[in-house]
Amino acid sequence: MDIAALRTAHPDHWMKATAIRTLTLDAVAAANSGHSGMPMGMADVATVLFEKHLKFDPKAPEWPDRDRFILSAGHGSMLLYSLMYLTGYEDMPLEQIKDFRQWGARTAGHPEFGHARGIETTTGPLGQGIANSVGFAIAEEIQRATWGKKIVDHRTYVMAGDGCLMEGVSQEAIALAGMQKLSHLIVFWDNNNITIDGTVDIADITNQPMRFEASGWHVQSIDGHDPEAIDAAITAAKNDPRPSMIACKTHIALGHAAQDTSKGHGALTNADQLKAAKEAYGAPMGDFEVAADALKQWAEIGARGAKAHKEWHDRFNALSANKQAEFKRIYAGEAPKRLSATIRALKKQISEGAPSVATRKSSEMTLEVINPIMQETIGGSADLTGSNNTLTKDMGTFHPDTRKGRYIYYGVREHGMAAAMNGMALHGGARAYGGTFMCFTDYARGAMRLSALMGVPTTYVMTHDSIGLGEDGPTHQPVEHLAMLRATPNMNVFRPADTVETAEAWEIALTSQKTPSVLALTRQNLPTVRTEHKNKNMVAQGAYVLADAEGKRQAILLATGSEVSIAMEARDLLQAEGIGTRVVSMPCWELFEEQEESYRKRVLPGGPVRVAIEAGIRFGWDRWLFGERGKREKSGFVGMHGFGASAPAERLFKEFGITAEDTAAKVKSLLK
Amino acid sequence: MDIAALRTAHPDHWMKATAIRTLTLDAVAAANSGHSGMPMGMADVATVLFEKHLKFDPKAPEWPDRDRFILSAGHGSMLLYSLMYLTGYEDMPLEQIKDFRQWGARTAGHPEFGHARGIETTTGPLGQGIANSVGFAIAEEIQRATWGKKIVDHRTYVMAGDGCLMEGVSQEAIALAGMQKLSHLIVFWDNNNITIDGTVDIADITNQPMRFEASGWHVQSIDGHDPEAIDAAITAAKNDPRPSMIACKTHIALGHAAQDTSKGHGALTNADQLKAAKEAYGAPMGDFEVAADALKQWAEIGARGAKAHKEWHDRFNALSANKQAEFKRIYAGEAPKRLSATIRALKKQISEGAPSVATRKSSEMTLEVINPIMQETIGGSADLTGSNNTLTKDMGTFHPDTRKGRYIYYGVREHGMAAAMNGMALHGGARAYGGTFMCFTDYARGAMRLSALMGVPTTYVMTHDSIGLGEDGPTHQPVEHLAMLRATPNMNVFRPADTVETAEAWEIALTSQKTPSVLALTRQNLPTVRTEHKNKNMVAQGAYVLADAEGKRQAILLATGSEVSIAMEARDLLQAEGIGTRVVSMPCWELFEEQEESYRKRVLPGGPVRVAIEAGIRFGWDRWLFGERGKREKSGFVGMHGFGASAPAERLFKEFGITAEDTAAKVKSLLK
Repeated sequence: MDIAALRTAHPDHWMKATAIRTLTLDAVAAANSGHSGMPMGMADVATVLFEKHLKFDPKAPEWPDRDRFILSAGHGSMLLYSLMYLTGYEDMPLEQIKDFRQWGARTAGHPEFGHARGIETTTGPLGQGIANSVGFAIAEEIQRATWGKKIVDHRTYVMAGDGCLMEGVSQEAIALAGMQKLSHLIVFWDNNNITIDGTVDIADITNQPMRFEASGWHVQSIDGHDPEAIDAAITAAKNDPRPSMIACKTHIALGHAAQDTSKGHGALTNADQLKAAKEAYGAPMGDFEVAADALKQWAEIGARGAKAHKEWHDRFNALSANKQAEFKRIYAGEAPKRLSATIRALKKQISEGAPSVATRKSSEMTLEVINPIMQETIGGSADLTGSNNTLTKDMGTFHPDTRKGRYIYYGVREHGMAAAMNGMALHGGARAYGGTFMCFTDYARGAMRLSALMGVPTTYVMTHDSIGLGEDGPTHQPVEHLAMLRATPNMNVFRPADTVETAEAWEIALTSQKTPSVLALTRQNLPTVRTEHKNKNMVAQGAYVLADAEGKRQAILLATGSEVSIAMEARDLLQAEGIGTRVVSMPCWELFEEQEESYRKRVLPGGPVRVAIEAGIRFGWDRWLFGERGKREKSGFVGMHGFGASAPAERLFKEFGITAEDTAAKVKSLLK
Repeated sequence: MDIAALRTAHPDHWMKATAIRTLTLDAVAAANSGHSGMPMGMADVATVLFEKHLKFDPKAPEWPDRDRFILSAGHGSMLLYSLMYLTGYEDMPLEQIKDFRQWGARTAGHPEFGHARGIETTTGPLGQGIANSVGFAIAEEIQRATWGKKIVDHRTYVMAGDGCLMEGVSQEAIALAGMQKLSHLIVFWDNNNITIDGTVDIADITNQPMRFEASGWHVQSIDGHDPEAIDAAITAAKNDPRPSMIACKTHIALGHAAQDTSKGHGALTNADQLKAAKEAYGAPMGDFEVAADALKQWAEIGARGAKAHKEWHDRFNALSANKQAEFKRIYAGEAPKRLSATIRALKKQISEGAPSVATRKSSEMTLEVINPIMQETIGGSADLTGSNNTLTKDMGTFHPDTRKGRYIYYGVREHGMAAAMNGMALHGGARAYGGTFMCFTDYARGAMRLSALMGVPTTYVMTHDSIGLGEDGPTHQPVEHLAMLRATPNMNVFRPADTVETAEAWEIALTSQKTPSVLALTRQNLPTVRTEHKNKNMVAQGAYVLADAEGKRQAILLATGSEVSIAMEARDLLQAEGIGTRVVSMPCWELFEEQEESYRKRVLPGGPVRVAIEAGIRFGWDRWLFGERGKREKSGFVGMHGFGASAPAERLFKEFGITAEDTAAKVKSLLK
């Protein structure tokens, strides 16, 4: 590249973009780790976007109607941090830039949501940002249709690299966005032809513009270092009714000795080369120094949004008090006050009627009373709507022609769905839930982990949660998935035993602020075990005594979900033989773990033998089988010891020995 | 559709295709579950493929040079079972068809590898088959280049549905196959415009031919019910130097009342409608009956391959005895005899030199001695070659111009890589390993689970296995992943402590026949802890005493991987205070679990306090902290309690309290 020509063609622009490049070089050099090349390659695009198009106010990072800027290529975090520092985000003073990648800094190796106000999402695992962005854009579309353009009218801008586009989840996102005609979504592809292993063509020859066009996108290809071309392309993208992809031909590590090489992707720390690059830029400044004029111009850019922000507030204040309160409520992520009473009423009705239904149906029954009172819910399924029971009456389908619809047909795209749900939650004003078969948690893991890491309260409706799925066989039968999900920090895994527990689990999920929820639900019908109505949300304690022993307490049965009714049957068998048996329902281990030790010991006292019953593997159960302290209890496990099989569900439970009879026999053998 | 016209245009073809359709209808009706529509829609394509193109011999389902037929749309399993029955596979008599989806039957809901000889791979989780097929085709290309066309020259045919193409993993597979110009790969897209939730356009408007073309595929679009068009398209596909996609416009559930509807996708069980469909087909037979003429023609198709098979055997027998033996060895999945001595020599050298290296480097050192003696290894990385240390000298890169190369640049495609590795293993004659950061296990889970379920001995090289990754931060730091992987049935999870254990783990992985392996390896350097050479493979026992207590045994430290050396340091601290401390290295829980209880009790005797040290979460460790039987031991855990952070690794270990000092303090507090 002819750096000199770039400098002279657009000197003001160049100076501003240079500030990003030199801050990046300095921060990576100081940390002696990180990724210099991407911010240096995309600095021009970012500068034009922030200067001329992005609607934002650094003084109000949570302004609901701001444009969202998503750095899908999260390894280029210094691009984001530089922009935040230069435009004046309070959480991003120069000290943070200097502390890049150090303990306690807000400037983590990859952008972490929650570390600094203004970081819209956690990126780094490639493809997640572009897939999040579909959720951001869907939330915006729904809210624009609902609240009107005066209140909601913003765009989602994404920077994605070759790695993002190689990840399969990007295809799920691209196809969904194209079908949904998300016109407020604009993706910049950092087309630098470099990945870690070498030039892109050692692994990919995909014509990316053609690929996006195949899914209905508006596509432009430009020189990513030409500010006029960038500006024109963004303007054109904003005016097109389709989602837009702008292929930006860039040079990774522009102006550095490592330009256009794999080495340029990583940490450029050589002092001489750094100095030479700064000289080439015409910015031979010291470490972390930025030209005063550049600082001034960047500060002006940062100040630009205050007016639009104020005007928005004026429009917002013109809304009725009720509307304002409702808008604030959904953006605060608060459930409506009547949620609690609504759930209680449902529980009472169920306890009295004691229906025998699958918990996936219980979930639908709960959603039927929730969705009408929570306009912020956005539901969907990865092509299993009728099986996941996720669609309720009057939600409406989200579609290019029906933008107020709150139900999304995600297609067979579990990963894209989960990532989009994260985007909706991060956008604000939306509470997302989505369904698939629990076994296909496997496909969605990448995004589900990020729900937990970011602390966004999405809800995963995972039906067909065991061998109870039956004939579809072991590929569709989760056995290790409860353990996998329970192992994940900051994730509430609910396995409710009946409709009452399902309603209680939903109430917790819908009031959660910082923790995603997984609802593991059955395909098969289950009896109501909570036949005595209680106002209290028993699931909130994680585990509780469902039925106590009659006579001397000799055994405790611990069970979750579909196996709770098996435990109750086993209790009947044992009590008939005079063996006092307590049944503990454990719908949520994480919440039980959070209880006081005294409560846990009351529920699981020492002494009696313990048998856990769960149609999954034992992994993790030892925590509960061995007691809190003191003497170890005699214990056993009734569950799976490997993968499942294809046969009718009842046959499978019998063949795998997960029955009341097997449980009673296990207890008796332990009592011998 | 005008069924009558189809019948009369190609009566012989129609009769044969009808057999597939009626068997499908009968089997699904008898099971009262399953998927009728796909086999009914694709019966014409399958019939032409099997009659005119597929090279196969039902009497020899493992003939190495057979064409592979991959039913990616695995829910259409009755298509495969019908074909196997009709062409005469021994494992697929009519009784199996009648027993569809029942306990113990080979005819599971979805095709399960290993249930019947002739099922090439397990499918059902969508997208897996098409992604497997890339591995099948790569293995074939490498072997064709290595052994010559006389011995290896076959094709991989795939049937994929809309669901397969919506899954992101399909994009990874398509892009990789296109770049690699896998000319022997031919994919039929069952373009029926129906998914479970409705017509495809409610979730997708992607122009699939354009999408494939964008990645360098040869694409044709045909009427999937016209046998002449099908035949011509396959011929053209075989003659093109690119991978081929044939878009087959089909009618799901052809000829049934549910044709072209979502209902047609599922189980069609209505007796009257079934009868009407059979009448429309001109095949008003009883349950499971097939016209004698059709049976005869299908039998002839099944017999057709015997000649090619015999000719192949003649050519194979003309090879030298050594070559024949080598070919048989790699197809038997047997390691060469000298592997054991090679590993021993490396171990001896390492024990003596006691280098301080990262175990990812240890893995490379091991591969450097293995790859030259095992021509069947096929390595690769998902764009982290230099970080995963997966490429060794003289492997060569697999590329359209260098077909003997055994190293694959997979691109940033963890899921596609894992699925391709499964395909290579299933193809035979190949032992696949592939690397990524351990955290991105999340992306590959869908295919990794299938490695375990199918029992194929692939090896996952998962580096950067803890907070030891350092500055990249929590998105890149696994904490729950060891638990997740250990929870998966039939998966050996190795976390070696040094180079010697790494070499031992590799030896087990390379001699495994039925179990995939995960190697969890460090980014950071570790001292050699196995400084005393032993011929015996100690890792094979899963856990063993690395250093015993001096004096009275008061504590046992259990550790894996990078924390073993921390345990050794803690032992020094404790012994210095007179506290007799044993260190147990536990590189593979699964193998330890398989040992006799007496061995486990010798390694972990009751009495001493126990402290486990692992830079991951505690989930699962209770199994080992609480002892085998009898009294519960006092115990503690030194490890992670949530997600990691971005900072230099040493700082992280200190901040999270995973040090020798923390460990010694924990032991002392337990001894009080």
